Amino acid sequence: MASQEFELIDYHFKSHRHRRDDVLVGIGDDAAVLSLPPQQSLVVAVDTLVEGVHFPKQTLPCDVGYKALAVNLSDLAAMGAVPAWATLALTLPSSDKAWLSEFSAGFFDLADQYEIALVGGDTTRGPLSLSVQLQGWVDSECVLKRDGAQEGDLIYVSGCIGDAGLGLLVQKNLIKVREEDESFLLRRLNRPRPRVELGLALRGIAHAAIDVSDGLAADLIHVLQASHVGAELDLAAVPRSAAYERARSALLAWRHTQQKAETLWTDSHFALDAGDDYELCFTVPPSRQNLIEPIARKLDVSLSLIGRVVHGGELFLIDSQQRRHCYTGQGYRHF
Amino acid sequence: MASQEFELIDYHFKSHRHRRDDVLVGIGDDAAVLSLPPQQSLVVAVDTLVEGVHFPKQTLPCDVGYKALAVNLSDLAAMGAVPAWATLALTLPSSDKAWLSEFSAGFFDLADQYEIALVGGDTTRGPLSLSVQLQGWVDSECVLKRDGAQEGDLIYVSGCIGDAGLGLLVQKNLIKVREEDESFLLRRLNRPRPRVELGLALRGIAHAAIDVSDGLAADLIHVLQASHVGAELDLAAVPRSAAYERARSALLAWRHTQQKAETLWTDSHFALDAGDDYELCFTVPPSRQNLIEPIARKLDVSLSLIGRVVHGGELFLIDSQQRRHCYTGQGYRHF
Repeated sequence: MASQEFELIDYHFKSHRHRRDDVLVGIGDDAAVLSLPPQQSLVVAVDTLVEGVHFPKQTLPCDVGYKALAVNLSDLAAMGAVPAWATLALTLPSSDKAWLSEFSAGFFDLADQYEIALVGGDTTRGPLSLSVQLQGWVDSECVLKRDGAQEGDLIYVSGCIGDAGLGLLVQKNLIKVREEDESFLLRRLNRPRPRVELGLALRGIAHAAIDVSDGLAADLIHVLQASHVGAELDLAAVPRSAAYERARSALLAWRHTQQKAETLWTDSHFALDAGDDYELCFTVPPSRQNLIEPIARKLDVSLSLIGRVVHGGELFLIDSQQRRHCYTGQGYRHF
Repeated sequence: MASQEFELIDYHFKSHRHRRDDVLVGIGDDAAVLSLPPQQSLVVAVDTLVEGVHFPKQTLPCDVGYKALAVNLSDLAAMGAVPAWATLALTLPSSDKAWLSEFSAGFFDLADQYEIALVGGDTTRGPLSLSVQLQGWVDSECVLKRDGAQEGDLIYVSGCIGDAGLGLLVQKNLIKVREEDESFLLRRLNRPRPRVELGLALRGIAHAAIDVSDGLAADLIHVLQASHVGAELDLAAVPRSAAYERARSALLAWRHTQQKAETLWTDSHFALDAGDDYELCFTVPPSRQNLIEPIARKLDVSLSLIGRVVHGGELFLIDSQQRRHCYTGQGYRHF
């Protein structure tokens, strides 16, 4: 593809209209040269999507393009950072113009919303995969990290949890839901809305933050481990969408077809582990609890109180009968 | 691999000793936070290596690790930038500890030479490929770009050209060379020495620069196109190593087995097109020619005058009889 690489890049990416004054050298040189605002620190995130691993083969190219950027925007959101410049390392089996055209439409659909400039990249031949790296900046004094959670902090999560996981089951034809729920859940899977504005609003308020990509429980555990604390999480408080609630019986029926038949497994556990939500999970000291509701209102995003940070190093789930279960992440065999 | 991803990263990458004071948040959070020196602009380069495309399957994992970083260092060198922080997006068929151990040894072998910190990454399951992104900085007033070449400039290239291309023929068992030459050529292919110090020395001296990755002719043409100029390149002046000279007859014999039998094809043409050299090609105004030799001496690198920038937009090759041929890059059918 080498000889065509430059044409491809030119055609689909370089010609894109977005210009930023802080891009001193963009696509077309050996490297990009970018101007960071004074007093700000550079923030860098990278994520790879591989066909068949991170998205099924039938995923639309425009959704792949959108999501590749969205997952990185979500990472920057979790740091309270302002996103600015992306690079794209794209590996394609062949130089497929139609695919590239749709892919770049999805990518720039989201890039344009945040005025992100594509400043470099590399197009190579090989099995379909792509790595997007996103650069931005943050005032290092109020960066949101994983290691700042403190005992007594309240744990919040934005939006609803579990929709993307359900969407994947729908996309794979493993469960059947109502038609209008199907398009909602697929959209939640393929077009996650990164919580950039929320991350910015939480600077100086949240003690710790992470984006929910691996699953709410697994990601919360990353925070606990980094902060050397434990947590109690109220299962019933984990926010679920109306579409999710309507899919409960279909979800439980699907689960029944799986190898394990834990009597204590509920649809809450699916939501905890499903991942791909790209919501923000963050901890806030009780003294700042009053600041959360105004943020939710201003940004028109639901922010749910789902638990609190406790002493120790473990994650406990509180069930509907107020029983405490140690989360093990291994199919809940210890319940 | 998801559940093992963090262990893998911890084991092979996070634990590595290199610490830099300007890494405010490194591996282990949603994104890295990095402190750029004041008054400097950010420089970002990304390159992907795919098994079977950019390196043969039999390439040693340590060489893959080394080269993945080297090609990006070479890009930053071509900008006159100081390299600082790398991220690694690694896609592996399986979580192979031995492979990862060797790979990271090669990567850090080079990273340590330039005190580069690995600040983030993403390990995923899939066909073997890797994208390294390298960040650094440059004073935007003296960044080396492709578009600065001017009529009358002298064209230089560092080191020797064509060794890596020959090394690939050797690695693929397509040609046979002396034993000591074999190890030299393979080293030139797998362990290219990026010209970081040279790039830094050329700031304020070179009008334009590029690293030779696609082939000297193709890369020079990138400079010419960006600068809207032409060039004359003296074929005999293209620097070749002693090993290359000794392999000439083997190379010509190999070429003879290929489909085309251009009577005017010489081993110089192979060197021009082979690529993977990771030398710097740069243009300098005649008034600064006297500054080049001291740089070559100080850095112990050969810098060869190979041509000059002329009016127009084409690359002309000057042969040993001083005849002028327009380079077309298409097997020299127009010679």
